Amino acid sequence: MIRIGIDIGGTGVQIGAVDESNQIIAQSSIPTRTDLPFEAQVDQMVDCIHGLLNPDLNPALTLDQVASIGAGVPGLATADGIVINCTNLGWHHVPLRDKFRSKIDKPFFVDNDANVAALAESVAGVSAGTTSSVFVTLGTGIGSGIIINGKIWNGFHGIGGELGHMILKSGGEPCSCGNRGCVERYCSATAIIRMAREQVEMHPESQILSMVQGDASKINAKVIFDAKRSGDPVAEYVFRDYVTYLAQTLASVTNFLDPEIIILGGGVSKAGTLLLDAVREEFPKYVLFKELSMPRIEIATLSSEAGIIGAAMLS
Amino acid sequence: MIRIGIDIGGTGVQIGAVDESNQIIAQSSIPTRTDLPFEAQVDQMVDCIHGLLNPDLNPALTLDQVASIGAGVPGLATADGIVINCTNLGWHHVPLRDKFRSKIDKPFFVDNDANVAALAESVAGVSAGTTSSVFVTLGTGIGSGIIINGKIWNGFHGIGGELGHMILKSGGEPCSCGNRGCVERYCSATAIIRMAREQVEMHPESQILSMVQGDASKINAKVIFDAKRSGDPVAEYVFRDYVTYLAQTLASVTNFLDPEIIILGGGVSKAGTLLLDAVREEFPKYVLFKELSMPRIEIATLSSEAGIIGAAMLS
Repeated sequence: MIRIGIDIGGTGVQIGAVDESNQIIAQSSIPTRTDLPFEAQVDQMVDCIHGLLNPDLNPALTLDQVASIGAGVPGLATADGIVINCTNLGWHHVPLRDKFRSKIDKPFFVDNDANVAALAESVAGVSAGTTSSVFVTLGTGIGSGIIINGKIWNGFHGIGGELGHMILKSGGEPCSCGNRGCVERYCSATAIIRMAREQVEMHPESQILSMVQGDASKINAKVIFDAKRSGDPVAEYVFRDYVTYLAQTLASVTNFLDPEIIILGGGVSKAGTLLLDAVREEFPKYVLFKELSMPRIEIATLSSEAGIIGAAMLS
Repeated sequence: MIRIGIDIGGTGVQIGAVDESNQIIAQSSIPTRTDLPFEAQVDQMVDCIHGLLNPDLNPALTLDQVASIGAGVPGLATADGIVINCTNLGWHHVPLRDKFRSKIDKPFFVDNDANVAALAESVAGVSAGTTSSVFVTLGTGIGSGIIINGKIWNGFHGIGGELGHMILKSGGEPCSCGNRGCVERYCSATAIIRMAREQVEMHPESQILSMVQGDASKINAKVIFDAKRSGDPVAEYVFRDYVTYLAQTLASVTNFLDPEIIILGGGVSKAGTLLLDAVREEFPKYVLFKELSMPRIEIATLSSEAGIIGAAMLS
């Protein structure tokens, strides 16, 4: 049997057929057409799936062999397959499961992309073999996926897994959600950029500014990590602050939920061991029971295929 | 069959036999003898259990009928029955399960008292019929117990459920754990007292001071709730601040874990509807997805028997 995984992103939709050993045996993609109505977007995906099924390439690639279809969306989906919101695609309260099933009569599942990535890592990535994990995407925003007893836990009402909107600094920085002091305001790439801009305004001699030709609007997380690597004290300061906030957040997750492993993904995690070593050093300071075992912290190992593999694993 | 539940507290040990409908059918207690060595304390509990088993009172009260024994401790216990620390009893790394089993050869389980209370409520209290809940004890400190899929979840390494040491205000009030800004510093009875003392120093005209005969060291949470009920503006201010911090904490729990229900227990929860109504009003402001269903917030309904019933349910 094979499973179809659909990774729906803001610019493209990746679709793949995944075999029983969690390998992608066929893959295709289509551009995300936000100009089309929802129904037409689904039709495109359905056509793409039919195009993928080619038993001449692999005898498993037939509709008969498809056990289920799963989709990951950058938004909120309910257990009954309705996408509540998915801003990038312009979807609001759309019945994705029912629409798909009217075209291809197979079990269909949909979940948030961070949950899907968490599931993929827990089966085929860095957290393979573990039964509880928290996956954190450190990007423009913060997403997270929780795995408990080997299954995605996105809450009783489906509104959990929003680590980015736990409050880390009550009364702190204003957040796009309308509150103040959310984790997202301190641990995202956007937070690094904000902190760096504040610092270079006070310290215009910083190497950071010369790296962006004096244009502070061009500062991104990578610039800060590069400047830190070459010893710029302002970048070092921003990096330390960021690592402290991230370590405090992961310690809060640990003191409350204590998963076996915490996985860092998303753009900021591309800083690799520079980030990982610093977070691993700072994290235990904020864990309550320091003398006992605590969660491992690792960087995600699956790359773009995580979205397809995880979506295919939904059940 | 019956199960024995042992509620080990700082001043007394409550022991009960619980039947299959979660009713206590026999109960006894002994004082907590911190002056005795660990072994002697266990011997006392074993004697108490034997004293409880009296088939003349109830034919179920025989050792043969005992399916298991469970204990709740105000401290940290591992899955293999070792109490890592239990400051009130002077226990550090004591093999409670093995010691008990050498005296009475029945399955024996031990867990933290907040976990035990969470389990009791979820089977016989306000959260009965739910499968996921977070129980929060608002006392001198903050304890919590997490139930997921009907079972206690205290983490992969057994160090979870410490909601009191999630960080609510990074860089904030110093905490006894060595960090700053922990939930416990803003949501415990101790926090109410601290906030009230700060306020009455600035506003000595407050009714709060006259209620404690001018002695600020006598301020407790009940005094603040009483003063708020009688309209004292300083008490109102402290109450609002406290409710805001508590609502933010419960919203963080929701945005991350989203249980079906959140239960408030402990001394502060005795404020009843005064507290509950205010928290229910404030809480949704900090929940990310306001248009969807969110956890109910309730006050615990089991009283002192929760410790026995929950311990008896451990498995």
